[in-house]
Amino acid sequence: MLMVYSYFWRMNFSSKLIEQAVDEFAALPGIGRKTAYRFVLYLLKKDEEEVRKFGNSFIKLREQIKYCENCHNISETQLCGICSSHSRDGSLVCVVEDIRDVIAIENTAQFKGHYHVLGGIISPMDGIGPAELNVETLVNRVKRGDIKEIVMALSANMEGDTTNFYIFKKLKDFDVKISTIARGVAVGSELEYTDEVTLGRSIVNRVPYENSLVR
Amino acid sequence: MLMVYSYFWRMNFSSKLIEQAVDEFAALPGIGRKTAYRFVLYLLKKDEEEVRKFGNSFIKLREQIKYCENCHNISETQLCGICSSHSRDGSLVCVVEDIRDVIAIENTAQFKGHYHVLGGIISPMDGIGPAELNVETLVNRVKRGDIKEIVMALSANMEGDTTNFYIFKKLKDFDVKISTIARGVAVGSELEYTDEVTLGRSIVNRVPYENSLVR
Repeated sequence: MLMVYSYFWRMNFSSKLIEQAVDEFAALPGIGRKTAYRFVLYLLKKDEEEVRKFGNSFIKLREQIKYCENCHNISETQLCGICSSHSRDGSLVCVVEDIRDVIAIENTAQFKGHYHVLGGIISPMDGIGPAELNVETLVNRVKRGDIKEIVMALSANMEGDTTNFYIFKKLKDFDVKISTIARGVAVGSELEYTDEVTLGRSIVNRVPYENSLVR
Repeated sequence: MLMVYSYFWRMNFSSKLIEQAVDEFAALPGIGRKTAYRFVLYLLKKDEEEVRKFGNSFIKLREQIKYCENCHNISETQLCGICSSHSRDGSLVCVVEDIRDVIAIENTAQFKGHYHVLGGIISPMDGIGPAELNVETLVNRVKRGDIKEIVMALSANMEGDTTNFYIFKKLKDFDVKISTIARGVAVGSELEYTDEVTLGRSIVNRVPYENSLVR
């Protein structure tokens, strides 16, 4: 009886239309089938017009999105607002993994330079090598000679370190200073809960006391 | 300086296209702006064709979804697989809130009757009253005379109880037995962690020992 019901449930019960929509939602990062189903049921309660607006917003985004030709940030014009701004310092370029990191750093209000968005990070397991990233355009920007310092602001993990090293090798023969954002204990955290590697680095790369004061 | 950067970030930095897509995702239940952004960045890395398939799956679902004319379950035919099956007992009808509950009950393999999907639950705070639910069609089904028992399987909360009461009043003058699914301690749980209301009900509505044995 249990076998019949299971078969029955799979074959007759759920609709292909529903399953396709659930599959699409379940492919989003961090979303399992149960949540995907909840999303689908939510959409089914909306008007057709609202759901068309929902679905089309993504299609429209993907078809119309443009990128800054200088830094690969999202942009509605050829040059993004940051690259074309006279109040930013174009001799300082911060290299980031993706758009979200540009927003994160902008939110700190501690950086006045330009960016370079790699579009990812070297990760052999995900099939992402240097060729899939915006590395050549970074080299070309450095060749133009206006850049004095490159700040590497990638994730402080193995893929980030690998990417840092690759880019360092590519740029070290040019007349440009290469730095990375500091590793250390997070503001507000206790030493007891800091892992040993980070703690070790925080000692080796210690800074003058005055630098640690929040301005 | 901080004010200028905040203004700059909002005005020049993020694209309207991105914001619209983020807004759509953020309207999904349980999804905040950070997760919505993560979804958008995920989609931006996909091919245009994949994103079209993504967006269109929801539009197609909403435009083409059909419901069983008897029980309001999703169905690709006028009568769903359950309502048209000869091996199901049409004299026993289980009333549920939505499609997901039909699946949940089917998964127990303990129910052989038909369903009636209300499409929601009475919730004044959400603006859902009886008129927004499939109550009249339930009454009509009962009027047809084939139904011997209605099993109320709504959530065991205030909205569920309110809906139970409303439907009970609507149906009590008909020759139909009305029951609700049992409240009690969850299988596998400890008495210590059961709330007092549920514990009280489990005592008042106690069942013969033999019923508690798993078959």
